[in-house]
Amino acid sequence: MSDQQWAEKAAEALARLRDQRPLIHHITNFVVMNDTANVTLHIGGLPVMAHAREEVAEMVEAAGALVLNPGTLTPAWVESMLLAGQRANARGIPVVLDPVGAGATRLRTEAAQRLLDEVRIAIVRGNLGEISTLAGLGGTVKGVESLAGGADPLTVARALSGRRSVTVAITGALDVVASGERAAGVENGHPWLTTITGSGCMATTMVAAFAAVEPDPLLAAAAGLACFGIAAEEAAAIAHGPGSFKVALMDALYHLTPEKVLEKARIRSLT
Amino acid sequence: MSDQQWAEKAAEALARLRDQRPLIHHITNFVVMNDTANVTLHIGGLPVMAHAREEVAEMVEAAGALVLNPGTLTPAWVESMLLAGQRANARGIPVVLDPVGAGATRLRTEAAQRLLDEVRIAIVRGNLGEISTLAGLGGTVKGVESLAGGADPLTVARALSGRRSVTVAITGALDVVASGERAAGVENGHPWLTTITGSGCMATTMVAAFAAVEPDPLLAAAAGLACFGIAAEEAAAIAHGPGSFKVALMDALYHLTPEKVLEKARIRSLT
Amino acid sequence: MSDQQWAEKAAEALARLRDQRPLIHHITNFVVMNDTANVTLHIGGLPVMAHAREEVAEMVEAAGALVLNPGTLTPAWVESMLLAGQRANARGIPVVLDPVGAGATRLRTEAAQRLLDEVRIAIVRGNLGEISTLAGLGGTVKGVESLAGGADPLTVARALSGRRSVTVAITGALDVVASGERAAGVENGHPWLTTITGSGCMATTMVAAFAAVEPDPLLAAAAGLACFGIAAEEAAAIAHGPGSFKVALMDALYHLTPEKVLEKARIRSLT
Repeated sequence: MSDQQWAEKAAEALARLRDQRPLIHHITNFVVMNDTANVTLHIGGLPVMAHAREEVAEMVEAAGALVLNPGTLTPAWVESMLLAGQRANARGIPVVLDPVGAGATRLRTEAAQRLLDEVRIAIVRGNLGEISTLAGLGGTVKGVESLAGGADPLTVARALSGRRSVTVAITGALDVVASGERAAGVENGHPWLTTITGSGCMATTMVAAFAAVEPDPLLAAAAGLACFGIAAEEAAAIAHGPGSFKVALMDALYHLTPEKVLEKARIRSLT
Repeated sequence: MSDQQWAEKAAEALARLRDQRPLIHHITNFVVMNDTANVTLHIGGLPVMAHAREEVAEMVEAAGALVLNPGTLTPAWVESMLLAGQRANARGIPVVLDPVGAGATRLRTEAAQRLLDEVRIAIVRGNLGEISTLAGLGGTVKGVESLAGGADPLTVARALSGRRSVTVAITGALDVVASGERAAGVENGHPWLTTITGSGCMATTMVAAFAAVEPDPLLAAAAGLACFGIAAEEAAAIAHGPGSFKVALMDALYHLTPEKVLEKARIRSLT
Repeated sequence: MSDQQWAEKAAEALARLRDQRPLIHHITNFVVMNDTANVTLHIGGLPVMAHAREEVAEMVEAAGALVLNPGTLTPAWVESMLLAGQRANARGIPVVLDPVGAGATRLRTEAAQRLLDEVRIAIVRGNLGEISTLAGLGGTVKGVESLAGGADPLTVARALSGRRSVTVAITGALDVVASGERAAGVENGHPWLTTITGSGCMATTMVAAFAAVEPDPLLAAAAGLACFGIAAEEAAAIAHGPGSFKVALMDALYHLTPEKVLEKARIRSLT
């Protein structure tokens, strides 16, 4: 697929998202709940945060996509994620996993592995260290930060994609997305994203919002990351630091249009 | 009561709030804790968030009002809300309920109903779908968003007010407040409020802050919503999008004065 | 130590912090998780929030400092704080305690006392009412706000420092830090800090970030508070209200340099 075709498909997906306003059910960490709810709203979805085992299966039935983000996890939350994920699977609702801190502690690594074992995940979005850990390639994670060194993101993404039959997105200087034999790179983005907490979680929310309206997980992930990156580029142009960058990022997500995406998306097929 | 009298009484209530600095005890959802704490501070109160069953009854004794907001609820949190609510009742401290997501899942609907059954609620503040659900009139809630269509907010507010002997506020394009036979409409506000997460929860906090200093629940609700709406109007005048709107809203709440309220409040009696 | 020497040492500590990027493990309250994670990142550390008893001891081993902040506490969280604190002690990792709301409820007061009993705390950072409560001098705390009146902060800080053999920082109009016989005052800061929720918790995070790179707890606390205060002064110069102040504060923390600290820090030895 040509770069132009990628941009066209991403723009079309954004138009569908704004039109359909899908509910994005998050079971996510406390740090980013407010930010990811706002990202969902600004890009065109409806957010709901719900984690009680008594309601997650019922709530997810109304959703267009489910985000499982086990940062600040406890075992009880993982149980709720399993309940919600399995119900989502039964109803054909795409599930997006953000394995926050996989590699940092045994609890986090095992939780992510268990979610991959027991729920059919459509897309995993993480940093290089987290994905490398889940792919069985080692990977160094300090807290929730990737310290992975020389490993090639595309190789790592493909390794986990092959091992788990999922689409895998690794965000970094260049975002890469792998889905079986296919892969894409997303060049949109800005280094300011690394200066605010939760930018990875927000990227995951973007991917989930697009997965709610786009059945091809490779395209959903690439489109979500491209849109997030374009908004970051626009925000960086007016930010004075990470505080004003985050405010401007929220504004830019809201004002993103299919026309801008067509013009600014830099997605390309990787081989 | 004339529009002018409403504005005068709202302005006087704001002056009392700034003077008395009441503690507003919140048992609320994770998404909005930071925002509603800031709203409380900026409008003139002192916020405290506390949910442990071991301390809620003791904490609420120092409060001027109690907010019960069962978004992101679990059964344990509902138990704490009951404990705090009943102690507040025993001490004559007004309790404000925000039935987030009532109608979306059985857990949420039943939690809100149970709080209405077992705690004497002074004011319920919700969207049309939530209030309609609690009034037994149906109502469609997707996540935490009201999809209620043609129902008339005043009719719905009056239905719940009659059924439960509470004051009911429904926020929307026009806010309505009903208290038995009496009712008021609040025209202040701005569509930007619908673009940020938690604006309903912030409105509830405003209502609670005013309930701490104003014994008439109809006036407390109308004054809180008018002040919130005025701040939103001022913020909208300088915002570039939802991120900068939220920042400007916080600034505007802080700078709100009785004089501005007297000039800008648009509250009117409804029949 | 002269004022100039204090400033030099604070500047050197900031340079080390930016160079070493220590992980700051927080077990903290829900209200401030996002803000304190961002403060950690902006000043030069890596934040991680983790509270599950199954992972806290493992997580803290990678940390340069541990923050224990029992606002929005429940007994289960206190157990996790004890586990993490004791492992930190075993590994020589400094532990910083923020006794949010000590004095407001028995649960909060006892939790703070128990953490002081069972964990070797390096630095306690609180407001006058909280520290006064822990020092056995009374102290009035309404929610999380100090209402302590005429007590002298230095006397109170010294009382708790002596009683518990910890370094104690009390933030207020003038911040004071006491460590055994030694004490310092920090004049940096701005009244806008009192208008936003969580500024005390952010100050604690700053102290912890510096404690990760500076072995003298008196200097770590003074340097952290001076840097926070300088950023607040810079933010206040461009803020229009508490919302824009918080945004500007985040920007200013990020742009803080050792050169600015050398120029602007106002720390002095107290006797």
